Amino acid sequence: MTVSTRCHSVSSQGNGHIIDITGDVQDTVASSDLNAGVATVFVTGSTAGLTTVEYEPGLVHDLTAAFERLYPRAMEYRHHETWNDDNGHSHVRASMLGPSLAVPFVEGALTLGTWQQIILVDFDTRPRTREYIVQLIGESHGNPD
Amino acid sequence: MTVSTRCHSVSSQGNGHIIDITGDVQDTVASSDLNAGVATVFVTGSTAGLTTVEYEPGLVHDLTAAFERLYPRAMEYRHHETWNDDNGHSHVRASMLGPSLAVPFVEGALTLGTWQQIILVDFDTRPRTREYIVQLIGESHGNPD
Amino acid sequence: MTVSTRCHSVSSQGNGHIIDITGDVQDTVASSDLNAGVATVFVTGSTAGLTTVEYEPGLVHDLTAAFERLYPRAMEYRHHETWNDDNGHSHVRASMLGPSLAVPFVEGALTLGTWQQIILVDFDTRPRTREYIVQLIGESHGNPD
Repeated sequence: MTVSTRCHSVSSQGNGHIIDITGDVQDTVASSDLNAGVATVFVTGSTAGLTTVEYEPGLVHDLTAAFERLYPRAMEYRHHETWNDDNGHSHVRASMLGPSLAVPFVEGALTLGTWQQIILVDFDTRPRTREYIVQLIGESHGNPD
Repeated sequence: MTVSTRCHSVSSQGNGHIIDITGDVQDTVASSDLNAGVATVFVTGSTAGLTTVEYEPGLVHDLTAAFERLYPRAMEYRHHETWNDDNGHSHVRASMLGPSLAVPFVEGALTLGTWQQIILVDFDTRPRTREYIVQLIGESHGNPD
Repeated sequence: MTVSTRCHSVSSQGNGHIIDITGDVQDTVASSDLNAGVATVFVTGSTAGLTTVEYEPGLVHDLTAAFERLYPRAMEYRHHETWNDDNGHSHVRASMLGPSLAVPFVEGALTLGTWQQIILVDFDTRPRTREYIVQLIGESHGNPD
């Protein structure tokens, strides 16, 4: 049983940019010597979140529209009074989506569906480099169970 | 320390069908030789999600109503233009709810409340068999900590 | 590799009380002999949830307002007919937010951002003691990876 923790960086345009990180998470699994276990994906910071989606331009648009409909940018947020900031909606959206995912892998492959990708959504209001953690806990040889 | 991964199938009517999978997850824990650890539950595919609820008909109705109110079926979704499909709302709801849960177990039992059940919500628009993973990572004898 | 499971109690005023539990989760990690691994945080019961946020009074207000806007207390909930209860909105909010978080730690510290705290949100309609689990799975000496 081994723990392997890796920090990844991704370049983001912010403002709800939806980034497909499946390849990087899968590569982290494949380049480890682990056969079976769990990949914990965790985004550092309070203005981004993680989930899965069928990553295609239509749904990228639909998800973006849903976030704007439920948590409009042009509302009053008390957070703006605290820091004279403009990203209250970014924080609320990030908290609602959540910062962590736990994805099992077996035989060195994530147990995702064919049309299911892992995405990082950066709700902050400016381009920046975002960091997230991929931590693997597992074993080198699969349980015959 | 052991990893044990099991794939479960469940028959679903789709259209927001809310299925109580607590018994199957608990049975997976009980039939393993693990005493303490974490059960990662992960639903494969991009039109279903997982959470917990007090599973009773009133709340099944209330949850269903909340999904329809926030992410109406009868809206325009760009996803429909991509595939000439009708399940844009299914994808958006699934992404918002999320595909994974991490539930600790101790002494062979999930640490759920008495009125807290694990549910799979199938948002897709047709009956189908849904698959989800239950992966256990833990140890055979509890840490006396 | 070790599993260490601890149950925490926290005093809550209910009605959407947002409680910063970061210190208790971090202390649990620091007081273990584990260097690297995952902290699974899980709230017992079906009227509370977990996420992360920049914990400051402005955002505490903004999150509270978002929950009330999306899942109003003063709506009809079928759950009330089941138990003659008044907390239908509490259950729906809790299911939507979700009961579990998986937070990696390395070198004895959670991989949170500086402005990212772990919160428990108690949606129930009365003051009570809430319980949540912090379960650590990890190893005493870090993987040099």
